[in-house]
Amino acid sequence: MAYQLVALNKLVEQLQRLPGIGGKTAHRLAFHILSSPPQFGKDLASAILNATDVVKNCSVCCSLTDADVCHICSDEKRDRGIICVVSDPKDIAAFERSGEYMGTYHVLHGLISPLDGITAEDLTFKQLLTRVITEEVSEVIMATNGSIEGESTALYVSRLLKPLGVKVTRLAFGVPVGTLLEYADETSLDRALEGRREM
Amino acid sequence: MAYQLVALNKLVEQLQRLPGIGGKTAHRLAFHILSSPPQFGKDLASAILNATDVVKNCSVCCSLTDADVCHICSDEKRDRGIICVVSDPKDIAAFERSGEYMGTYHVLHGLISPLDGITAEDLTFKQLLTRVITEEVSEVIMATNGSIEGESTALYVSRLLKPLGVKVTRLAFGVPVGTLLEYADETSLDRALEGRREM
Repeated sequence: MAYQLVALNKLVEQLQRLPGIGGKTAHRLAFHILSSPPQFGKDLASAILNATDVVKNCSVCCSLTDADVCHICSDEKRDRGIICVVSDPKDIAAFERSGEYMGTYHVLHGLISPLDGITAEDLTFKQLLTRVITEEVSEVIMATNGSIEGESTALYVSRLLKPLGVKVTRLAFGVPVGTLLEYADETSLDRALEGRREM
Repeated sequence: MAYQLVALNKLVEQLQRLPGIGGKTAHRLAFHILSSPPQFGKDLASAILNATDVVKNCSVCCSLTDADVCHICSDEKRDRGIICVVSDPKDIAAFERSGEYMGTYHVLHGLISPLDGITAEDLTFKQLLTRVITEEVSEVIMATNGSIEGESTALYVSRLLKPLGVKVTRLAFGVPVGTLLEYADETSLDRALEGRREM
């Protein structure tokens, strides 16, 4: 870049490491930070540092929390007999927005993906197994996404847990509500047909 | 949001203050920062703090620099007799990418905009006037954009400097090179006609 300013270029470099932030956006953000009053950058940096410092994984479900046990795991109203297994903490937010689900969660922090060098040891299967063995769990809902990695991770968990007598279910895939059928993609339509139910 | 995590929500709030970052993107970025090793967040925060700390305005052209005088103003090869006036430091990067311009710059840090409460006193006209008076300036190129604010700021500068006998020119507006004429917007076409030159 034409701007010979080490501190600026380093900032751009760091911003570019964020997902979805390319060179141009990183420059725009960096210039915005530097054009704003210094307090703006200080507030942003301290929010990042504080979050990095305070937030850790819940000792039960491995989701993000600032306590030892997250607010969902420590909620008495939640059904501990049902565990919804997701790959990422942000997937929990999607379920919580709907407000329908009253069970607990388990965050794997990734999906099995041999091509990316992610094996079962890198994920939180051990903690999940401990929960199923020590708590009275009636159902484990596999809510990983519909990709090859998501499917094979779901299969891995079902093979891991079925010998223990736990019901393992899979999230329904199909045509999204509100989409016109003519615009639905083939795979979703195939899955919708496969998963059809009697009315 | 469904995620009851003060540190996370504060981080999202700060990220949302950046231009072009809405609620969903801010959440994605925050989750990425928290899912990455702590060093990731620390590096990002320290790049922001360092840039905020080190970068200041050039004492000559008011652009961003980590020294007293920026690398363009202190470059012996640059023609100090020509000053290109821009509203924002990032506009300089656009000119420098083309590599054609060998004069110096002056950054106004905004445009006159009475509706937004930005008056001539908020911008760096004083510093520009000082440069024109104390240095041998032959031409001032107004390179503010073609909006109402850009035009009125250009007009203001020309009225300010013309009594001093300086040539004040305006950047040419017209149809962008590489655009098909049928897709050119009306205003650009009008300006292209207005600015037509004999071949």
